[in-house]
Amino acid sequence: MMHIERDVSLASQIARALRLRLRHDYPAGGRLPSEPDMAAAFGVSRGTVRQALTILEREGAIFRRHGSGTYANRHVLRIQTRAEMAYEFTDLLRLAGFDASIRLLAVATQPLPDDVAGRLNGESASEGLVVRKLFLADQHPAIFCVDMIPTCAILAPYDDAELRKPIFEFLEHRCHQSIDYCVTEIVPEVADQELGTLLEIVPGRPFVRFDEVGYSKANEPVLFSRVYYNDRYIRFSVLRKKV
Amino acid sequence: MMHIERDVSLASQIARALRLRLRHDYPAGGRLPSEPDMAAAFGVSRGTVRQALTILEREGAIFRRHGSGTYANRHVLRIQTRAEMAYEFTDLLRLAGFDASIRLLAVATQPLPDDVAGRLNGESASEGLVVRKLFLADQHPAIFCVDMIPTCAILAPYDDAELRKPIFEFLEHRCHQSIDYCVTEIVPEVADQELGTLLEIVPGRPFVRFDEVGYSKANEPVLFSRVYYNDRYIRFSVLRKKV
Repeated sequence: MMHIERDVSLASQIARALRLRLRHDYPAGGRLPSEPDMAAAFGVSRGTVRQALTILEREGAIFRRHGSGTYANRHVLRIQTRAEMAYEFTDLLRLAGFDASIRLLAVATQPLPDDVAGRLNGESASEGLVVRKLFLADQHPAIFCVDMIPTCAILAPYDDAELRKPIFEFLEHRCHQSIDYCVTEIVPEVADQELGTLLEIVPGRPFVRFDEVGYSKANEPVLFSRVYYNDRYIRFSVLRKKV
Repeated sequence: MMHIERDVSLASQIARALRLRLRHDYPAGGRLPSEPDMAAAFGVSRGTVRQALTILEREGAIFRRHGSGTYANRHVLRIQTRAEMAYEFTDLLRLAGFDASIRLLAVATQPLPDDVAGRLNGESASEGLVVRKLFLADQHPAIFCVDMIPTCAILAPYDDAELRKPIFEFLEHRCHQSIDYCVTEIVPEVADQELGTLLEIVPGRPFVRFDEVGYSKANEPVLFSRVYYNDRYIRFSVLRKKV
């Protein structure tokens, strides 16, 4: 079992490395090296390379032509920000070509809104840690994020300063949880005076809000985030397949 | 080769059948039957069932626990409308619980906007067939869709009445193309007077527009669609994974 898990995670690492290389070296498409050549270049088995390629094929980043080889998919690789991929916000902004920084606005322990508590295991999640952060792109506000974690999920003492770092790290170190996936609702919004000021959006202009529940590897909801994106800096695309 | 393709498409069919069954029979989660039992129930090989389960696992609809079996993922199954999945609009509305109907508003052959032509192979796509349709949910306008196909891609004569049917059928019959995937940009918008009237949205209220390019199996752009969703009827969610 451990052996399989290690393999899977190694394939994910190779996929991550290949993903970056594809964006840099194959922006116009083109044929990839053979599997044995990639295996040699990464110093891993051919099976691991094949697993990594399967991950990238499912994402649409590459495609295979029968009897001809594996190709980079320029239509997919040129997508700036894919909604299906949960990047840390600073990585997201850097990938979009900006200098990224974080401003911690507020940390509080307070009652959670009923709809949020309901999505985070109900009753037991009525009180939570609420963290408000602003992510800057070249010093301009680009993403405003409100993270909420049920107080009962926090297992170890912490210092507020830790909350400047990605919330995933806090969840790992203080809640002993890691997020496996998020279910994210895409909500269209119009900037009011307050959000307009915060995100430098003209009041009355539209933007996208993500309401997302983060689930742990044990498939329990452990994080609720409400995220407001200034679409001058971040605009999402998604790859859609017929089912 | 043919044998493999047939297998893949059979696995997709089983995955589609299982997907519907999961939504109906396992809304609260629960353990699925064993692979041999499912193979017997569907009258297919165990390998095909395993492929179908892999598709559903990548979607997040099921998860596996080491040594314990395969489980329905209620957090994912209860998502009404997933952005990663391209349903036909009438299916989308029916899945959301509405009676669905189509109103063909206009059909025209006209110059395509430069940005659209640019995304559809440039110069050669300067003129196109433009089809405007409204999709109704319980008789109320829910989705307004503008499909654009370069004139040069249309290979057979057609009757305007055909354009009441899904555009995918038109592409197959008249362009000999089938869409493999779409790359869709999620654009926040505010209703103006015209769209407000068309979609029964109060002017000034936000909604989501999808700008999507459909790519053929040969990975060529063959369709551009601009789709406006009234979020009273359709709201999208997306499953996001860390990369």
